[in-house]
Amino acid sequence: MKVVIAGFGTVGQGIAEVIGMRQELFAKSFGQPVRIVGAFDSKSFVKSSKGLDPAELVSRKNATGKVGTKDIDNGMRELIEEYDFDTLIETTPTNILDPEPGYTYSMAALNAGKNVVTSNKGPLALRFRELSKAAAKNKVQLRYEASVGGAMPVINLSRELLRGEKIFSLRGILNGTCNFILNRMKDEGLPFEQALREAQEMGIAERDPSYDIDGVDSACKLAILANAIFGMDVTYNDVVRTGIRSITEDAIALAGEQKKVIRLIGEINKDRLEVSPRMVPSGHPLAIGGTLNIVQLLTDLAGEVTVVGRGAGRMETASAILSDILAILSDNQAKGR
Amino acid sequence: MKVVIAGFGTVGQGIAEVIGMRQELFAKSFGQPVRIVGAFDSKSFVKSSKGLDPAELVSRKNATGKVGTKDIDNGMRELIEEYDFDTLIETTPTNILDPEPGYTYSMAALNAGKNVVTSNKGPLALRFRELSKAAAKNKVQLRYEASVGGAMPVINLSRELLRGEKIFSLRGILNGTCNFILNRMKDEGLPFEQALREAQEMGIAERDPSYDIDGVDSACKLAILANAIFGMDVTYNDVVRTGIRSITEDAIALAGEQKKVIRLIGEINKDRLEVSPRMVPSGHPLAIGGTLNIVQLLTDLAGEVTVVGRGAGRMETASAILSDILAILSDNQAKGR
Repeated sequence: MKVVIAGFGTVGQGIAEVIGMRQELFAKSFGQPVRIVGAFDSKSFVKSSKGLDPAELVSRKNATGKVGTKDIDNGMRELIEEYDFDTLIETTPTNILDPEPGYTYSMAALNAGKNVVTSNKGPLALRFRELSKAAAKNKVQLRYEASVGGAMPVINLSRELLRGEKIFSLRGILNGTCNFILNRMKDEGLPFEQALREAQEMGIAERDPSYDIDGVDSACKLAILANAIFGMDVTYNDVVRTGIRSITEDAIALAGEQKKVIRLIGEINKDRLEVSPRMVPSGHPLAIGGTLNIVQLLTDLAGEVTVVGRGAGRMETASAILSDILAILSDNQAKGR
Repeated sequence: MKVVIAGFGTVGQGIAEVIGMRQELFAKSFGQPVRIVGAFDSKSFVKSSKGLDPAELVSRKNATGKVGTKDIDNGMRELIEEYDFDTLIETTPTNILDPEPGYTYSMAALNAGKNVVTSNKGPLALRFRELSKAAAKNKVQLRYEASVGGAMPVINLSRELLRGEKIFSLRGILNGTCNFILNRMKDEGLPFEQALREAQEMGIAERDPSYDIDGVDSACKLAILANAIFGMDVTYNDVVRTGIRSITEDAIALAGEQKKVIRLIGEINKDRLEVSPRMVPSGHPLAIGGTLNIVQLLTDLAGEVTVVGRGAGRMETASAILSDILAILSDNQAKGR
């Protein structure tokens, strides 16, 4: 399998390394290597049909700020369409106001008969229908486990392991930063601003934290899950959203007296698509602490099935991309390709 | 697909009903029905190559105590070997001292070229290697998601969704009865005996509770997971085991002062195969309450991945069997069978 990596930040570098680490698995399970035949970032590109060395790509990026050896002139769309490869790994940064450039890259790949594996929430939260239609029309795969909850395998769990279930609803904690802040407020009795500062100092929250604490990130992920698992046709803008800025230490203490904790919960059911702070009983799976992500699915036969995993991180996100690459290889193998 | 159900207690009845409920899914996804062409319990059997009505089987069992219309003379092994069907659903009761009759039935089916889907822990916890060798030799599938943790899809998660990970270790709560008792002791300050009586009155614990509270059930499941996920070659007898009888309300209160809870944890790593009570910090996924089952896998790229589900129940266990039936159908479809 020949892959091109679009975007070479933390996630792009992580998946390049992981592809290097897993050649033995690819050979043993599928009798073929996975070769990185191209990579680009916003400024530069590099390609080689013989395959590029992941370590070299990462070290050039770190040394020069550019993954490639050539500058980009007219964007990468033409290369994506015309170059010979099988799967685009799309890891450009998420921007929730604008799905570009990821959307154009993914559409170009799908329409050129190439699979797309992406970690980029923007295109999926804003243009899910267009992307999945293009994948279906061109009989290629669009996979995006990495876009929701990092290493928490919620999409593949729902669509593969629970394919025999009717899934009625979903609730989850989709942002580790908010969960960390709420948990610190409870454990140490800290006011919101102080817990936020602590999270910023630890690198858990961004300097501009609104994307996390106003529920924007959670709402993107919820829209993706609504489309992927429930077959809805929604965007980020359809999610009713309340963040955690106005949660006081008093509210958390009061909840504690009732043996409850406050969590920023995303919920999908037939009447509701909402991210908002909720009370959760202690001991309930959703009362989880730390920066973990968690999703609970309510199904007709199995009842509640819950999955928990690390929501972010270089290797964690790369691991979700790897699982999608393996799913494509496995599907090709089954079809005798 | 033609199936025969061996054992017609709670689980056997549940899967018969679920097969009836999901005919539309089988037709839509695989273009074929799943027909129950035979069923038997310890006393009786019934067969029909045209297919049996699940509702009729369940109502006859409830009315007469027998699923079948004919008495069993010489055991069912010959029928399993000679009758024309594809998959044996083995739901006879678990007996940890003796893997029979499930072991003989499963081996007969595998050696006759039939798939086996089982919920029965005994044969898997005592004779895993023999069963998996017979499946491999005859190029048929042996699947057993239902044998561990009911509706918690830990085996298929590990083997399918996490196939790209190196899994280093596993920890989990594999018995809902123990978790319920430990949780009631903590929440209400009850002594062990009283919490156990309460569980018995609610039908959560058996009249003879030793199978649960001495960790026998957890140890069976741990041995199955060690074989299935870590490729070990162990039996139930290799698991070091301590139950919860000697946990006092004082120990639980003391743990609470340190913001910890006591849980009966099963652990697998390269040096350890053990079921024993452990302290777990509040807010940790393993601090879960109620009768839920939970497993946490430690992997190289994804870090900890955790799955939680209902550990028992008629429909919950049937749902795990259904997921295995769908996996076989899907595999056959991919291979063009």
